[in-house]
Amino acid sequence: MSELFTGAPVAKAIRASLEERIALLKQRGREPCLAILRCGEDPGALSYERAAIRGCELAGIQTRCIALPWTADTEELLHEVDRANGDSAIHGILVLRPLPRQIDTQRVFRRLRNDKDVDGITVPSLAGVFVGRDWGFAPCTAEACVAMLDHYGVPLSGSRVVILGRSLIVGRPLSMLLCARDATVTLCHSRTPDPAFLSRQADILISAVGKAGMVDEGFVHSGQIVLDVGVNEGIDGNICGDVAFDRVSPLVRAISPVPRGVGTVTTAILARHVVSAAENLF
Amino acid sequence: MSELFTGAPVAKAIRASLEERIALLKQRGREPCLAILRCGEDPGALSYERAAIRGCELAGIQTRCIALPWTADTEELLHEVDRANGDSAIHGILVLRPLPRQIDTQRVFRRLRNDKDVDGITVPSLAGVFVGRDWGFAPCTAEACVAMLDHYGVPLSGSRVVILGRSLIVGRPLSMLLCARDATVTLCHSRTPDPAFLSRQADILISAVGKAGMVDEGFVHSGQIVLDVGVNEGIDGNICGDVAFDRVSPLVRAISPVPRGVGTVTTAILARHVVSAAENLF
Repeated sequence: MSELFTGAPVAKAIRASLEERIALLKQRGREPCLAILRCGEDPGALSYERAAIRGCELAGIQTRCIALPWTADTEELLHEVDRANGDSAIHGILVLRPLPRQIDTQRVFRRLRNDKDVDGITVPSLAGVFVGRDWGFAPCTAEACVAMLDHYGVPLSGSRVVILGRSLIVGRPLSMLLCARDATVTLCHSRTPDPAFLSRQADILISAVGKAGMVDEGFVHSGQIVLDVGVNEGIDGNICGDVAFDRVSPLVRAISPVPRGVGTVTTAILARHVVSAAENLF
Repeated sequence: MSELFTGAPVAKAIRASLEERIALLKQRGREPCLAILRCGEDPGALSYERAAIRGCELAGIQTRCIALPWTADTEELLHEVDRANGDSAIHGILVLRPLPRQIDTQRVFRRLRNDKDVDGITVPSLAGVFVGRDWGFAPCTAEACVAMLDHYGVPLSGSRVVILGRSLIVGRPLSMLLCARDATVTLCHSRTPDPAFLSRQADILISAVGKAGMVDEGFVHSGQIVLDVGVNEGIDGNICGDVAFDRVSPLVRAISPVPRGVGTVTTAILARHVVSAAENLF
């Protein structure tokens, strides 16, 4: 029977490591606070917002939500970014996606203050992840995968990792974070001819594609660690990952479920970034 | 018998594509010009400088060399960077490495104007390579590898690539450039347990390690394309690549030699970047 890598103990440990730091910040008169900017009512954005608020609450971090209508234009969103940038009571800013088509996303991202960019979307944060330097924060989900593996004692140095999906939220930054930890990473995507063949070679298989049930028995072997970063709606209407959990989980050494897996850790990482941002502003 | 991927025809084709653009620039009163900043007399830096000057000359691009002593400090180098940044007759700036230990390399790189950064060392250039956006130029050697493969008609989409070496000059940026072209890349390095095993699976094997003869018969298979990006001094004192050429070349479909391989293309790419920089400044 495989081990279940649930997110809760990892998130709990991360939050515990923040307690003293938050207490110190409050002693110095600073209440760490995250601003969440959103346009419209996209279900994915709303669900991430709820999770972010809850993750921050559990850690003892304030949140402030700024919601614009889906019809908002670039100038309106930039105005809110400027306000959050300039507000000394706000230490981290999260811009929820998707943003409506009429918004110039790159302009919005570029306007964000790098030191308040807790989800790694500004130019110096992106370059820092690529270069392996502390020029900002990494995207929370990518860092959550590393935290998950570390928490459960999975050795990274010398390991072979296959990542499915090359997004800027998970796949590409995660490949760089893991390479910096001396893992050998193969980055697969929609144009990879035989991802199952490659996946079977991995010590650690991480799926961040967004296709329910895509990773089946053919992708895995016993002894393998599988992280499922997909968040999909299953045919039964329930949230599920990229991995066909019932069929894959008996075959591998360890697997993270969806829900209650990596996603749970993501918001704890977000809280950690807000605390670091608040500390860095001294 | 394997095909020899020499650099000269690739470089020649790139330079030919620049002729009209340079003529147009000169018509508009702009003589494209590259400034080369160097500290000391490191043999590698001097050799790259000579190649860069020759590559620019062949393309009809001016060069200006600024050499500081190996004892120069950060302020002195920053002063030269500022001068080149502010000189409207200079369109591209190349900072040769190695830099002496007392220099704050990151401060120097950050001072460089992004639009004159023809070798991809500034923060926006690095982020652009990572994200796949045109925020600057990619490191010339990484781009030279892609140009080489394109010139010889090697399909990238759907191919499996193994890169040996994770430097910021070649390995990491090249992995991103090739991923953007729909290749599936495995990035190997000194901590990869069995690089030969992985290399044998590649359609395209690219070595950028800096170890003479490291890539031997055990790394290759027939049908494979091998690019050798290593520049080493062999036991006979001659320049050689990472690949044991005499033993490997009969076994593969195509191979690039050292010298006369990728390095020859690198300076043509550098020339192309200078021309683009000169155009962009209008």
